[in-house]
Amino acid sequence: MDRVAIIESSMTDFGDREAWVRGLQQEAALACLDDAGVEPGQLEHLYVSNMASGEFEGQGGIPNMLAHDIGAVPAYTQRVDQTSASGGGGLFAAWQSVASGASELTLLVGAEKMTATAPDGVDNTAFATDIIASLTHPVEYKHGVTLPSFAGLTARAYLHAFDAPRESLARVAVKNHANGVDNPHAHFRKVVDIETVLDSPIVADPLRLYDFCPISDGSAALLLCPESLASSYADTYSVITGIDGATDTHVVHERSDPTRMGGVEKSSAGAYGMADREPEEIDVAELHDMFTILEFLQMEGLGFAEHGCAWEDVLEGRTERDGALPINTSGGLKSKGHPLGASGVAQVDELHRQVTGTAGPRQVDAEVGLACNVGGFGNCVTSTIVEAV
Amino acid sequence: MDRVAIIESSMTDFGDREAWVRGLQQEAALACLDDAGVEPGQLEHLYVSNMASGEFEGQGGIPNMLAHDIGAVPAYTQRVDQTSASGGGGLFAAWQSVASGASELTLLVGAEKMTATAPDGVDNTAFATDIIASLTHPVEYKHGVTLPSFAGLTARAYLHAFDAPRESLARVAVKNHANGVDNPHAHFRKVVDIETVLDSPIVADPLRLYDFCPISDGSAALLLCPESLASSYADTYSVITGIDGATDTHVVHERSDPTRMGGVEKSSAGAYGMADREPEEIDVAELHDMFTILEFLQMEGLGFAEHGCAWEDVLEGRTERDGALPINTSGGLKSKGHPLGASGVAQVDELHRQVTGTAGPRQVDAEVGLACNVGGFGNCVTSTIVEAV
Repeated sequence: MDRVAIIESSMTDFGDREAWVRGLQQEAALACLDDAGVEPGQLEHLYVSNMASGEFEGQGGIPNMLAHDIGAVPAYTQRVDQTSASGGGGLFAAWQSVASGASELTLLVGAEKMTATAPDGVDNTAFATDIIASLTHPVEYKHGVTLPSFAGLTARAYLHAFDAPRESLARVAVKNHANGVDNPHAHFRKVVDIETVLDSPIVADPLRLYDFCPISDGSAALLLCPESLASSYADTYSVITGIDGATDTHVVHERSDPTRMGGVEKSSAGAYGMADREPEEIDVAELHDMFTILEFLQMEGLGFAEHGCAWEDVLEGRTERDGALPINTSGGLKSKGHPLGASGVAQVDELHRQVTGTAGPRQVDAEVGLACNVGGFGNCVTSTIVEAV
Repeated sequence: MDRVAIIESSMTDFGDREAWVRGLQQEAALACLDDAGVEPGQLEHLYVSNMASGEFEGQGGIPNMLAHDIGAVPAYTQRVDQTSASGGGGLFAAWQSVASGASELTLLVGAEKMTATAPDGVDNTAFATDIIASLTHPVEYKHGVTLPSFAGLTARAYLHAFDAPRESLARVAVKNHANGVDNPHAHFRKVVDIETVLDSPIVADPLRLYDFCPISDGSAALLLCPESLASSYADTYSVITGIDGATDTHVVHERSDPTRMGGVEKSSAGAYGMADREPEEIDVAELHDMFTILEFLQMEGLGFAEHGCAWEDVLEGRTERDGALPINTSGGLKSKGHPLGASGVAQVDELHRQVTGTAGPRQVDAEVGLACNVGGFGNCVTSTIVEAV
């Protein structure tokens, strides 16, 4: 079967943007198309990954709006929502559009506007946190559980079960901030040290402010076509060799082991199988570090480390940019920011840059990359393997 | 290529339901799986088409919730939103999941909860209308334009341009209500006469209350697999032989001719081409009669009638159940109801029943059916051809 190629990618600046989702998605889309030398009217399908434009800013129909605003009509459009894994879900949808033969040129745009959307008199962080919390199951939500609270409970369980030092979590934040300094689009471009992380305010014990990603605005885009057509669009392109998604129980407290992410294990098994790759063959990875503890859990679920041992690899520097397996060279969600629908797309933008040798000061030696995008608290996860050709 | 088969379908009662989207989607999903003799755990992919559960009832993450509630974990899930064409968009996504080889057993569930969701003191119709209006382009929305107002303007333009009598529009409502009487799941099961329609209160001149579909709750489901596997699940199944989608300009007033629907023309051309079918070969059709005028415009855009002539076919009874081309044997959105994300799925439920000879008292002589699902005011449209095997 013809594989699906990524012929171009883009991301906007992530952060507090003076723009609505309409402007953000347009910016990423046009940058991607311009770089590829593709006219919007050539697009056959146009997917928008976005969790909650209606809840954040009262705007629906954003794929139709984008098709109109950039001049892509009559391209077919739809919105894909898979909560915080909307970007990965959108990529799976866009991949399917090409792999099924329905489209020979598909643009995926992930976008989310999250800052400055609260009604007057309402704190924006509380407003955004409540929208995000609405993705949890009602049986948990009614008890006041939020994703940050799950993160705190999980971190406590992990540190206790594997006798891991608190500092190992802080090292994730320190590493990803260091990487983000070299990403011109990152929300935060500042080095932080261990002490800053460990002395920051408590959010959900034992996790502190610097264990959490920020609330950000932003957008990212990927342009896909069958590999057989890729060279007609681009001299250099990458290929999606494996992609899959999987759910875990939506009621988080029903999981038998809170230190394991079933969706990560299942979706990556599918992606590895499709790509005929082993975890040892991955050269670079973008993981969903919404909370520092999630980077450990994903490293283990993806087979990069034994269960309970990821913290050792992090402490030993194995996941630094000059380590054996660089993780989150982009800065990760932690420093780059986490505009829900854009994050999974931006992860693959980074992989595309790394395997095509266009990552600039962040460049590592990589032929095979893996992205893991987590919806909710692992309630649905997508894993994607991107390779050089 | 292996075609995509529909091995089972279901729909819940549509109407004022004392249930939230969580219960509605579960009801349709379990009915479909039970009828097929398939265990939820066998599902590989699970798609939910829904426009606005977050806006209506503050609930996100509904595909993950459904996977959990019915026991389909670890099936991959996502939500597809294409406004009022979410059902058609969901079907295109579900079709792609099978056609691409990503899934060998996909359940699509369309669902929307629209009644009794307004905050205390807010009129529910106004609440729902505002959510729906948020899908329009801001340049129109800020002038107070809503979909019903577009319908009134379009109806006036059509009646004037083609010298069509007002009664022809009323006949659409009368026909679809007559069909709905035989649909046990329809929101309204009552015969109405021309006078009742013409004497009902004005909503958007010249259209009156009975030219509009109701606001409804409901859900519908379709179970898909590769045709090569269909006989292992079902003695009788249908096949999706053509499917496509297309946008029209999102700013409705920019269209050169308001009596034409470009998205209908473009998406049906794609579906006809894929199925190798002509409009004359369609035996039964489910059209998106959100407003009576849309049934005329779709008939013409789909090639069932010449431009400006659909009203004559309707007056002559050609689209009645005993006519040459029965349209909306299910009762259509007009009498069956229009729970946004469910409508496009319920259209194909009806086609599946018709071409497999299981439509009961609504049965017509049909081997080839076509469904047209309209997002916004034709801003994005999907067309699907379903055939007997």
